[in-house]
Amino acid sequence: MRATVFHGPGDVRVEEVDRPELTGPDDAIVRITHTAICGSDLWFYRGDSDRETPSRVGHEPMGIVEATGEDVRRVREGDRVFAPFAIGCGECQYCRAGLPTSCEHGESWSDHGGAQSEYVRVPHADGTLVRVPDRYADDERALEALLPLTDVMGTGHHAARSAGVDVGSECVVIGDGAVGLCGVLAARRLGAKRIVAVGHHEDRLALAEAFGADATVDGSTREDPIERVKELTHGGVDHAVECVGAASAMETAVGVCRPGGTVGYVGVPHGMDGGFPIFEFFTDNVTLQGGVAPVREYADDLMADVLGGTLDPSPIFTKTVPLDDIAEGYRAMDEREAIKVLVRV
Amino acid sequence: MRATVFHGPGDVRVEEVDRPELTGPDDAIVRITHTAICGSDLWFYRGDSDRETPSRVGHEPMGIVEATGEDVRRVREGDRVFAPFAIGCGECQYCRAGLPTSCEHGESWSDHGGAQSEYVRVPHADGTLVRVPDRYADDERALEALLPLTDVMGTGHHAARSAGVDVGSECVVIGDGAVGLCGVLAARRLGAKRIVAVGHHEDRLALAEAFGADATVDGSTREDPIERVKELTHGGVDHAVECVGAASAMETAVGVCRPGGTVGYVGVPHGMDGGFPIFEFFTDNVTLQGGVAPVREYADDLMADVLGGTLDPSPIFTKTVPLDDIAEGYRAMDEREAIKVLVRV
Repeated sequence: MRATVFHGPGDVRVEEVDRPELTGPDDAIVRITHTAICGSDLWFYRGDSDRETPSRVGHEPMGIVEATGEDVRRVREGDRVFAPFAIGCGECQYCRAGLPTSCEHGESWSDHGGAQSEYVRVPHADGTLVRVPDRYADDERALEALLPLTDVMGTGHHAARSAGVDVGSECVVIGDGAVGLCGVLAARRLGAKRIVAVGHHEDRLALAEAFGADATVDGSTREDPIERVKELTHGGVDHAVECVGAASAMETAVGVCRPGGTVGYVGVPHGMDGGFPIFEFFTDNVTLQGGVAPVREYADDLMADVLGGTLDPSPIFTKTVPLDDIAEGYRAMDEREAIKVLVRV
Repeated sequence: MRATVFHGPGDVRVEEVDRPELTGPDDAIVRITHTAICGSDLWFYRGDSDRETPSRVGHEPMGIVEATGEDVRRVREGDRVFAPFAIGCGECQYCRAGLPTSCEHGESWSDHGGAQSEYVRVPHADGTLVRVPDRYADDERALEALLPLTDVMGTGHHAARSAGVDVGSECVVIGDGAVGLCGVLAARRLGAKRIVAVGHHEDRLALAEAFGADATVDGSTREDPIERVKELTHGGVDHAVECVGAASAMETAVGVCRPGGTVGYVGVPHGMDGGFPIFEFFTDNVTLQGGVAPVREYADDLMADVLGGTLDPSPIFTKTVPLDDIAEGYRAMDEREAIKVLVRV
């Protein structure tokens, strides 16, 4: 089968590899039909993070169940499924507590061949896979709207939820990448009364507005986005939704928070050596809540809204490529030509 | 009058200075009878923090109202009062929201002569002063138990509360200084089922046990206090009460937290340049909550328990000095001979 293999910064290739097989009773094999390139894939692509070479990549799988081990109960051959970026057993104390990202038996897609490929082996299939109802199994519009639930939509939701966004909240979403845009959708879905989106790209901020932002602040053209947010919000907000992970974004998040407020964060912390603004949090009793998003926990609720027609994150896919052209997808995301790339397998 | 003046590291002196006078309609003048030396006073005393020299010091005043401005309504001449380490107006949005440490008109005792002196001018007297009921006004035992409410008891309470300690909680309190010991008292008062105290001094950990800790871990004799706490708690706790503020204490706090848990913190962050363990928080979705403790907000509730006889933090005062000998008090705390020093004026 074909699979995407990372060979070094700027170098991803589709290569012929062995097709995965069932190895345990709770495994499933999924034939992938849709997957995506993630902002976090750009870290190794850009050489910003270490990663073994060659190594298989991708962590946002959607497809059709091809085979299941004898203990698998919740899905069967032919089912349309997708899976979160983190593999969880579904049965340990943390999975049951809604935190499958801390699963006691957690694994990574990288250990199982990566999801940017024709097939993937899914360990803990009952805990990991989300089954799409049959009537939507081949509904292409529904599938494109569900694909972000594998990662960015659940992540944006986790950020908004961690920030305490609720009915009537006024909040600021920091970041206009795919996660930030999903954060806007999530804040609107959670009932935010007013959403200010902070980003660095005019076109992406326009999409933030289409997703429900009431106002936007473009940090690329404003000297002090924090001051502008404060003007727009009568001095700041109680809920800052941090969707980037960089030190500067964290500074903006705590900077726009009112004393006693909460920063919800989901971006993997990077560039924070010596830069985490702990003193700003401390001085004004701003709470920091969030972390790796347990998107599996949110998948069923978010799917219900997607299938019900009230949630559609698919506009974040501004480019689609076939698997064979995935290198072009990486290039387009790296050069910010595309917000997020959908890959058809 | 006499007042304590800081002249440089290791050099505090009691000197004759001008007695403060009312300068505004919401001022009060308090004749101080009791005050204390704080762990944070040791920062300038040790030269670990910059402070103007000469400057007046102290921020834990208790005494008798001597005079009030014409707008002061809640206290009058002759009342027994104490005040938190932060001055708040009591009327702005943050004071009303229970966060007087972020008061829009907040001031510092240093701006008003410091509290380690015979008299102090109290701005925003109605918002700042806590009135002790008359029947306890001269009850020396009650007064010594109330004095920690000016700072460390309210701070320990804020840490426990920020960590989410509640009825039935299992928690870890990190730090065996006055704040950590008060954190143990606070956790017990909030209903914790089981408290593990982590410190570095056998005698202080013994006091932690007297205050309600079920188990103690001495980091000075154990190579890995985190592992020991995990043994004692079947893998960690949901509530870590961080009462130090150093990077190592924060690492212990997040290290003993289970995924999805909360670190409550109140120690002014120090020594964290490059050292804040953000990745540990992120990976396991551990929440960081707390900050400068709004002790004024807690004073009435804590006072009710002190006067009712169910809360007594006074054993943290292991040494008492008269104002004239305050330099000896600083020395004793600096050399860890005393946990906390009570100063009689």
